[in-house]
Amino acid sequence: MNFTAKLENITKQNNSLVCVGLDSEIAKMPEHIQNLDDPQFEFNKAIIDATLDLVCAYKPNIAFYETEGIKGLESLKKTIDYLPKDIPIVLDAKRGDIGNTSLMYAKSYFEYFGVDAVTVHGYMGTDTVAPFLKYEEKAIFVLVKTSNPSAVELEDVPTDNGQPVYLRMAELVAKWNRDFPGTAGAVVGATYPEDLKPIREILPTAPLFIPGLGKQGGDAEKTIKFGIDANQAGVLINNSRGIIFASLGLDFADKAREACLTFRDELNSYR
Amino acid sequence: MNFTAKLENITKQNNSLVCVGLDSEIAKMPEHIQNLDDPQFEFNKAIIDATLDLVCAYKPNIAFYETEGIKGLESLKKTIDYLPKDIPIVLDAKRGDIGNTSLMYAKSYFEYFGVDAVTVHGYMGTDTVAPFLKYEEKAIFVLVKTSNPSAVELEDVPTDNGQPVYLRMAELVAKWNRDFPGTAGAVVGATYPEDLKPIREILPTAPLFIPGLGKQGGDAEKTIKFGIDANQAGVLINNSRGIIFASLGLDFADKAREACLTFRDELNSYR
Repeated sequence: MNFTAKLENITKQNNSLVCVGLDSEIAKMPEHIQNLDDPQFEFNKAIIDATLDLVCAYKPNIAFYETEGIKGLESLKKTIDYLPKDIPIVLDAKRGDIGNTSLMYAKSYFEYFGVDAVTVHGYMGTDTVAPFLKYEEKAIFVLVKTSNPSAVELEDVPTDNGQPVYLRMAELVAKWNRDFPGTAGAVVGATYPEDLKPIREILPTAPLFIPGLGKQGGDAEKTIKFGIDANQAGVLINNSRGIIFASLGLDFADKAREACLTFRDELNSYR
Repeated sequence: MNFTAKLENITKQNNSLVCVGLDSEIAKMPEHIQNLDDPQFEFNKAIIDATLDLVCAYKPNIAFYETEGIKGLESLKKTIDYLPKDIPIVLDAKRGDIGNTSLMYAKSYFEYFGVDAVTVHGYMGTDTVAPFLKYEEKAIFVLVKTSNPSAVELEDVPTDNGQPVYLRMAELVAKWNRDFPGTAGAVVGATYPEDLKPIREILPTAPLFIPGLGKQGGDAEKTIKFGIDANQAGVLINNSRGIIFASLGLDFADKAREACLTFRDELNSYR
């Protein structure tokens, strides 16, 4: 089953557009978890158990594991192994390198870690994403318009045909999605909801990975309105800190479930 | 001592502009090394011992270690610990993420692994590179014009002021180097040597990391001519496969030394 079908199934089954970001920074965890042998895995396990019927995907950001060195990457691997196989796992890695090197990353994430999708930089063009695209069952999400304040500095620079840089990037993603059907989506920040509209026009059927709601303050209604595809789906709306760190107490997993449910229902109210 | 001073010292001491790329893919190693317990570390150790008086830097690409999973990252850490402290280590990681995530990468590479510089994507703008720039003794190399064939697809798109995207990126690097002196350099592929000229004009004093000679077929003479700064230095000319895989026999380290020496002298002949 390819990524698009897997996403479609779980979106329907859980009636959810919510992707929970497992950006599991130890210093932000409840104290009783910080003191365990493997806090990142134990924390993730509790969050997953509490939310797995409410989500369309999970998205660990590898940086939060790399920063703990080898031990963190072991926690990431255990987390991925623990996740149910019917829920897509998007590894937020934002990689992008020349062809022979991208192949190494693709092997690491798709084969060694075993995730379903990876976020990537498309700045260097087709030959740097092709090694990922060749995995027919997997997907990439290319950074098109990111959610951070300084995204505008380069991404919004107008090009010679009037399109800003980020739309030129979206055109490349559209090409990759034609050449390798169903394997290329885009990352678009909810902090710039109006920019979703022209991106969705260029990418009518590609999945869009959308960070920036929750702590980053994006606009949920516009995000859904401009982001969803013709089937009222095709988006993974990420929320990391707003869900996983909803409480610092013993009840953190219950509170994460509550926050996830509220977020899911809010998003669904705009579909 | 900051990165620029460290680079200047070793460039003079070893009379070398050569950066050896430790892109140590196990399948490409001599068979007798592949059969050892820790082939990546043993291979690197032999290459380092054979070349350390001929180089201005080493550049492991983290992808070649990540692809081996946890074990590969252990080999990378051992390699970094083994390297002499007076030779700059550039970790080729090509990272780029929002601020709080970039901070995690910066901690991982500058503190846990302990390298001197990292390659990064600048697509997402200032707040995504700032966490790296705040390490005054360290440096980043921002991907400006990359060495791969499809680099032209986005990087060469003309923008509204006539500059291609890659020169807009170079202008950002110049700004970062003003705001955080000595910490921001650029990656520029030797496969597009003419593009080095306008980039060097925008970045007269920044270090340039230049891949693309050796196996990728760039032009050494033009690269030196357009790349070096006013002091006939300020460049790290990378060669990975052309040096480390110069021979597949028992003599691989000796042959790597020969290839490194020849490459160094060729580059110096154009200074």
